[in-house]
Amino acid sequence: MTGLRARFQMPPFYCPIEPALHPDADMIEKRAIEWLDRVGIYENETQRTRVIGTNSAEFFSRFTPEGVDDNVLLAAQWVYWGFAFDDVRCDRGPLSDRPDRFVRVAGRVQRVIEAPHSVDTADDPYLGALHDIGLTMRELATPTQVRRFIDAHRAWLHAVAWQIGNQARNEMPGLNDYITMRLGSCGGFPTMALLEIGNGAEVPAHEMDHPTVRAATEAAVLTAGLDNDLHSYRRELQQQHTDQNIINVLMHHEGHDLERALVEAVGLRDRIMQLYLRLHAQLLPEASNELRTYLTCLGKGIRGNVDWALRVPRYAAPSPPDESSTGSQHRTPVWTDTPSDRTPGPPAVPAISWWWDRVEHDE
Amino acid sequence: MTGLRARFQMPPFYCPIEPALHPDADMIEKRAIEWLDRVGIYENETQRTRVIGTNSAEFFSRFTPEGVDDNVLLAAQWVYWGFAFDDVRCDRGPLSDRPDRFVRVAGRVQRVIEAPHSVDTADDPYLGALHDIGLTMRELATPTQVRRFIDAHRAWLHAVAWQIGNQARNEMPGLNDYITMRLGSCGGFPTMALLEIGNGAEVPAHEMDHPTVRAATEAAVLTAGLDNDLHSYRRELQQQHTDQNIINVLMHHEGHDLERALVEAVGLRDRIMQLYLRLHAQLLPEASNELRTYLTCLGKGIRGNVDWALRVPRYAAPSPPDESSTGSQHRTPVWTDTPSDRTPGPPAVPAISWWWDRVEHDE
Repeated sequence: MTGLRARFQMPPFYCPIEPALHPDADMIEKRAIEWLDRVGIYENETQRTRVIGTNSAEFFSRFTPEGVDDNVLLAAQWVYWGFAFDDVRCDRGPLSDRPDRFVRVAGRVQRVIEAPHSVDTADDPYLGALHDIGLTMRELATPTQVRRFIDAHRAWLHAVAWQIGNQARNEMPGLNDYITMRLGSCGGFPTMALLEIGNGAEVPAHEMDHPTVRAATEAAVLTAGLDNDLHSYRRELQQQHTDQNIINVLMHHEGHDLERALVEAVGLRDRIMQLYLRLHAQLLPEASNELRTYLTCLGKGIRGNVDWALRVPRYAAPSPPDESSTGSQHRTPVWTDTPSDRTPGPPAVPAISWWWDRVEHDE
Repeated sequence: MTGLRARFQMPPFYCPIEPALHPDADMIEKRAIEWLDRVGIYENETQRTRVIGTNSAEFFSRFTPEGVDDNVLLAAQWVYWGFAFDDVRCDRGPLSDRPDRFVRVAGRVQRVIEAPHSVDTADDPYLGALHDIGLTMRELATPTQVRRFIDAHRAWLHAVAWQIGNQARNEMPGLNDYITMRLGSCGGFPTMALLEIGNGAEVPAHEMDHPTVRAATEAAVLTAGLDNDLHSYRRELQQQHTDQNIINVLMHHEGHDLERALVEAVGLRDRIMQLYLRLHAQLLPEASNELRTYLTCLGKGIRGNVDWALRVPRYAAPSPPDESSTGSQHRTPVWTDTPSDRTPGPPAVPAISWWWDRVEHDE
């Protein structure tokens, strides 16, 4: 284990997008904490500290740096809620290997956000808090934005159920299954559905539902999801256990050692990141203002997710991993301008290879 | 069991909607069977007969009696596929009490309809057939219609997972949970999402996502879902086993006997049917042509579902149940003009009571 940990260095992130932060991030955090204390999605002071320590207000303030204050607050509330729910009911709680019970919880949770006043909020603070978010969302967002968020929310829970099913069988999924699952389970769909709500700018249906916009959205979501895999892997190595994760999938199914798996994982992630950038550039000239804002904020989300992860207690290492063996003079830089893999075509992952079909080639 | 069966009479259906059938239903069925034989979602002649015997072409031809032939065919293909998948992978197959495995299958299935060319169709004819449907859908339907179908498809699988989780624990859900689950598990969302595809008439987003239209959609879906519960119950009684079903839920949790449970179930169903009719009437004056067609076809779906169920081998009794005890001179009529329960407000089911908030009352 010491050997593995010593060899594991976080590689630099390829992300040619400038960092950003909403100017009212501090105030948004203050208001979000007041809300957390009102809805009470923690059971004790330790849990409260943990929920607040997710820095969810900072997180989403990086996604929509020019968003409407009240709307960014609403989005931040959902992110806090999502982390709290994830810890108690998904990744770590008693349901983490009980798919039969998780799908019931997921069904109830989903209905709470779908159907106003469908829950006795006193019964369960997690349901009550989500219900509260749903009511506010119906005030601040358009019906189409609300519906998109609801569908994205279901996609997340659907994929988390898959993850929990694998956990119950102690099964490491293959690469194509893992990518399909991770695309949903990372929570990126509901988070990115909050972009147009945070910005108060509804993207017209003919744009949002266009396959190229969908591909760009999925590519941004998976880039962030794989980045979080790298952060999680570092933390989990230190906790002496690792879980379903792109690195473990590549080690388990492709027979790679850790070093090779890391190279492959970052290469895949960088190819997906480049695809997002390409589709973004391709879509911009014809895009409405609302779509332009949305697409740009997908990129802010990728960048903001890394900026946030490097600071947040959830992922932060007690001692930075890049100091553990080689000394600070050899510390790996955090960022790079150069993708580790420039292969232009699709990777051998059928679940996502259609994204590359959306690239327009110059004749 | 004989006593129960003797006492069980199908109550008449309250459905003041005229029956309808697409004039090309026979040709659509013929083409659909050619497709079934091409994609091969059966393993032997018995299964082939069973799949064809779902009469799915007739079923959907009742939903969109004025639909575009090719599009109604596409919808019918999905209905055949859905029944075949349901029998092999959901209700009856080896996954029916294995939620951990079902969620993996559901995740893969969902990705096949989401992502073109994401599957080696030779590996699994069920995935291959759904993939084929997805490709054709991208040719015949708009991107927004495709996206709506994809989201509805996930809602179905999400709810089926819940049902399978209950089955694994041998647990009969409570009424509110059951209604939430049944709303999704009955498959009505993807079926109704095929209406605007069948009709070749995309409903604008600001109409489709409006809460009142959503409430009308859900009410129509649940009316049909509860009707199917009644048909299933009759069949299951004859097969000497019954499953998660509105009647069993009411007997199990409310302590009702069969007679009382049946009265309560039909009363609830009739109140929901009346709500659909009311919201339909309320929405029509301001509706676009596309929305008007959609809303009307929701009603055709409720009616067509019963017309279909009364004839289809899937539900048909070897001897009609209304002849089993009292003789044909006392046979219960199939239809009634009078709802069994006229209570105007919402039932005590929080998951759906918000629908009644959408009713506009005269000042």
